[in-house]
Amino acid sequence: MEKLYIGVDLGGTSIKVGIVTEKGEILHKKSMPTNLPQPEEVTEEKICKLCQEICKEKNLDINKDICAIGIGSPGNVNNKTGVIGFSNNFGYNNWHLKEKIEAKLGLRVEVENDANTAIIAEVLAGCAQGCPDAVILTLGTGVGSGVIIDGKIYAGYNKSGAEMGHMVISVGGRQCNCGRKGCFEKYASATALVYDTKVAMLGDTKSLMWKICPNINDVTSKTVFDAMELGDKTAKKVFDNYIEYLACGITNVVNIFQPEVLCIGGGISNQKEVLLKPLQEYLDREDYARGLTKRVKIKIATFRNDAGIIGAALVGVNNAR
Amino acid sequence: MEKLYIGVDLGGTSIKVGIVTEKGEILHKKSMPTNLPQPEEVTEEKICKLCQEICKEKNLDINKDICAIGIGSPGNVNNKTGVIGFSNNFGYNNWHLKEKIEAKLGLRVEVENDANTAIIAEVLAGCAQGCPDAVILTLGTGVGSGVIIDGKIYAGYNKSGAEMGHMVISVGGRQCNCGRKGCFEKYASATALVYDTKVAMLGDTKSLMWKICPNINDVTSKTVFDAMELGDKTAKKVFDNYIEYLACGITNVVNIFQPEVLCIGGGISNQKEVLLKPLQEYLDREDYARGLTKRVKIKIATFRNDAGIIGAALVGVNNAR
Repeated sequence: MEKLYIGVDLGGTSIKVGIVTEKGEILHKKSMPTNLPQPEEVTEEKICKLCQEICKEKNLDINKDICAIGIGSPGNVNNKTGVIGFSNNFGYNNWHLKEKIEAKLGLRVEVENDANTAIIAEVLAGCAQGCPDAVILTLGTGVGSGVIIDGKIYAGYNKSGAEMGHMVISVGGRQCNCGRKGCFEKYASATALVYDTKVAMLGDTKSLMWKICPNINDVTSKTVFDAMELGDKTAKKVFDNYIEYLACGITNVVNIFQPEVLCIGGGISNQKEVLLKPLQEYLDREDYARGLTKRVKIKIATFRNDAGIIGAALVGVNNAR
Repeated sequence: MEKLYIGVDLGGTSIKVGIVTEKGEILHKKSMPTNLPQPEEVTEEKICKLCQEICKEKNLDINKDICAIGIGSPGNVNNKTGVIGFSNNFGYNNWHLKEKIEAKLGLRVEVENDANTAIIAEVLAGCAQGCPDAVILTLGTGVGSGVIIDGKIYAGYNKSGAEMGHMVISVGGRQCNCGRKGCFEKYASATALVYDTKVAMLGDTKSLMWKICPNINDVTSKTVFDAMELGDKTAKKVFDNYIEYLACGITNVVNIFQPEVLCIGGGISNQKEVLLKPLQEYLDREDYARGLTKRVKIKIATFRNDAGIIGAALVGVNNAR
């Protein structure tokens, strides 16, 4: 029988848990709201409850049938000790998550930063399978990033590296939460695209974007793509500007890492070729290694909505090797 | 007796060669002009001649007393095959340098990118000694960079990575030779500082910089520091602006790699504390990991003018391990 793992995608909004095969297939999943703020004991209790419930629902004995639990968490995670140094979302300090869950469930637990779980999933079972060097950028609320070098997660000396979202690409530009001005994520995240879409709509009351989305509060990162498909010029302008900044940051990452594969994940990556085509054209002009035959392959991440659960579970697989 | 190596610093202007101990001490050195353009055979002949001459001058038998020759070269170097894919400076394509020199001298030859030799020297015998993760930025004609991850040179899938000088920090900014606009090296190299100094001098005919350097063609990267020491306000403005861009790019590198040590080399690093103090202040405000106790240490590189020779020789030591 195939080995089974539990993956926990620990988010500020919800806790998602799934039973996952070692090939990255989800057999069963379940979630509940995180309900922050709450003491860390309550969050731990919720994680344990969900793990036990999904096992029961599939008639599995958590201690016999599950090899390990992998948890993907935001924040500064030490993947050796399983301690989360700090996490903006949760407001916990020095959270001994691995130790606590292991004590409660009697099972090996691995904790990893959630941006890193995404690249582990892609390298073990997704679009970067088998690549020793790979990078993921997830375009979501912010720009998350994960780096695999020589088959291992790279996070630097203090486990806080690979923060490509906080690379300034426009000196003195938009104010970022991190304290810097002009960070990549202030231009390339889904949040930034939504913001720029709203500004453009306010500037053009005749844009088809108003047809697609009569209430400006309902704008999503998809609005601009839908309007562009209908031939809306203002939407096209928003998109072109977005690509310019996205491609600039991606080319920086390419020039720095030259990975075999650079995966793009997060909601915006649903646009696939609409995104990849102009990105590749930009790279063909600006990649420092554009003259070489060995070029970085830009790909859309394989794992979509469940990437968090699958990636977390595969952290358990990876560390067992 | 201590093991001896030969280090070759192959530059567009001159070829510098030295006999170096495994601890990174130079016993004897010699150089000659490169005299480009010239066929690759002529460059190879010059390298061999210099290697043989320095040995003779120290009464050493090159085949008995020297363990290996390390060559640091600009361009896209494959450090396994010793082939230089392309090099702007030399104009050679697919140069089988390792093979050619080994055949001529009958000695093991290692070839490495010259930015990488600098970080190898610092990690083996300099300011980053023993660090598994370290980065060097050299502020010279351009901004060179070398990265050590887990004790090994990181250059990516196609050996062309770690080009931090070609990370855009100002979208649409100054035109760079690489084809991009706003590259880090267009603001943080010695060349950029000299350019900005000249512009400032032309804008202020009363600046003390004119006293230090009556002929504007003689301006160096030191001019602004000398004038600043005398209290010149225009020089201070040039410096403050330079630091703003330099610190921005360095903070990007810190946020991406979080290495144990980030070394600053090249001519401008002679300014030591004058440079380090404002850089550290900037990092204390903008480093994503500024809240942690484990912080990146910014240091001035140990090896100065002879860094190229020593680094190249230590590549020979490193690969022998």
